[in-house]
Amino acid sequence: MTTTIPDQQTIEQAHERISSLIHRTPVMTSRSLDAATGASLFFKCENLQRVGAFKMRGAANAVLSLSQKERSNGVATHSSGNHAQALAATAQQLGIEAYIVMPENAPQVKLNAVRGYGAEVTLCAATIQAREETLAQVVAQTGAAVVHPYNDYRVIAGQATAAKELFEDVADLDIIITPVGGGGLLSGTALITHYVAPNTRVVAGEPKGADDAWRSLQAGELLPGEQPNTIADGLLASLGSKTFPIIKQHVQHIYTVSDAEIVSAMRLMWERMKIVVEPSAAVTLAAILKNKEHFRGKRVGNIVSGGNVDVAKLPF
Amino acid sequence: MTTTIPDQQTIEQAHERISSLIHRTPVMTSRSLDAATGASLFFKCENLQRVGAFKMRGAANAVLSLSQKERSNGVATHSSGNHAQALAATAQQLGIEAYIVMPENAPQVKLNAVRGYGAEVTLCAATIQAREETLAQVVAQTGAAVVHPYNDYRVIAGQATAAKELFEDVADLDIIITPVGGGGLLSGTALITHYVAPNTRVVAGEPKGADDAWRSLQAGELLPGEQPNTIADGLLASLGSKTFPIIKQHVQHIYTVSDAEIVSAMRLMWERMKIVVEPSAAVTLAAILKNKEHFRGKRVGNIVSGGNVDVAKLPF
Repeated sequence: MTTTIPDQQTIEQAHERISSLIHRTPVMTSRSLDAATGASLFFKCENLQRVGAFKMRGAANAVLSLSQKERSNGVATHSSGNHAQALAATAQQLGIEAYIVMPENAPQVKLNAVRGYGAEVTLCAATIQAREETLAQVVAQTGAAVVHPYNDYRVIAGQATAAKELFEDVADLDIIITPVGGGGLLSGTALITHYVAPNTRVVAGEPKGADDAWRSLQAGELLPGEQPNTIADGLLASLGSKTFPIIKQHVQHIYTVSDAEIVSAMRLMWERMKIVVEPSAAVTLAAILKNKEHFRGKRVGNIVSGGNVDVAKLPF
Repeated sequence: MTTTIPDQQTIEQAHERISSLIHRTPVMTSRSLDAATGASLFFKCENLQRVGAFKMRGAANAVLSLSQKERSNGVATHSSGNHAQALAATAQQLGIEAYIVMPENAPQVKLNAVRGYGAEVTLCAATIQAREETLAQVVAQTGAAVVHPYNDYRVIAGQATAAKELFEDVADLDIIITPVGGGGLLSGTALITHYVAPNTRVVAGEPKGADDAWRSLQAGELLPGEQPNTIADGLLASLGSKTFPIIKQHVQHIYTVSDAEIVSAMRLMWERMKIVVEPSAAVTLAAILKNKEHFRGKRVGNIVSGGNVDVAKLPF
């Protein structure tokens, strides 16, 4: 496993490595959201990425970084979210097994999606302890290589490629903003920004109900969340030992927003931009709308993290 | 007013004329919908057009075709749908007045949208007679130029530009499919296909509950709908005296689909493509899914007509 913080070349190599497995996603603009915020917004649409989320980038880079021998017994993780689909889709494309541990209360639609990519799903109790124990058992039985959803430098390097594409497509961004959960996307974005656009401010949006990143940055030490609760179900995870130091060094500010603000921003994106985004992906626009004075007149890159949402159960 | 069927040059001129008022919309593909249909589908995303629908093209061309004198008293129409927004947005951009007659049962969200573009709205009873009488009064008072939503060659030439762009972006389409209501989009698409891609089959999808185009083509004469009723509220209108002859000559087939099939296709597009489409825009995919044997192995251009839907009232 890669044991040092990815440098610029490592991220560039990751981008080349995963290019056949990912989409180069489009950048959208919106007159009405520019008018609503006073900023020039550039939306990097990772909701249009394969499996509907940026997670495809990190999973693909992690698996492709394994030797043939390392990947010969398959790959494994525990996840009920987009990382599970991303790892399953990557494994399917490479013709190896994926073993996904999912909590027994995971929505049927997510179970179906993961199984649809040919992964073997093992259900367990809905606690982090049960998930980790079950994953350990699966790995003991199969010899599969574990790919953590964010606390892994290969994953971080993969997630960095979304912002890399955005900088290639849009010049002179004053600010780049991502959502933050476990911090894979934010730390990758912060690194590539530091390397290729050091004058661009890196900030993040975080749900108030899962504000461990905000609290950790305030305290200057890693403070994992306790019983996080937010509609942005992709952002429940806490920062990890690899993502926190990068974020501490390179991220200028974290904005927290309420679930009501997230839902309102999500609805705006559906109505004005005609794109389907999940709550986690609307946290950034919610942060911009709530703090307009920080963004007014600026060119703002906004990484739209994903679009996986049950359209039959919308919060509007 | 233009009184002859648009030729190729007329459509090319229309495209140039409206270029600063419209977006060149992206063409999307979807692995999972290709797998579901057995076809290679190319979605021309007019839901991402300005005002969220292809109607912007025809309205812009019609208004820009008016002389300065003709447009000096503003423009007018009766519509509760996307044409109203398109005409209002065009007028706003050109700095002229728009007078829109809307039925008093029009949803508040549509009223707000039209007023948001600075148009003057006149409410009337929800009958076609009241709408036409009220429009006549408005025109008598203001001297505004009327722009019909579809039975107008300038509008037809404008709508043709969506397919023109699609042919420019995607080679060798075997089939092109659009929804059909009043027939502006379908007749424009049929004309440009005839001119630039004569080997491409032109077909349409139509709701069973508003199947006047299907019945008219069967009968060989214009048979207006009686009490049409469908969830695809953009397709309630009947073919007109200008759209029907073009469709009769150049359209090979019309597929009818039920409201349940429309809703199912619409949901698929939201879930798999992560785009917001209105029911009218899902009629074509519904037709393809229902008649897979006609599309299997083909390269199919699918004009996604619009994305204006009340996200708080979804039929899923």
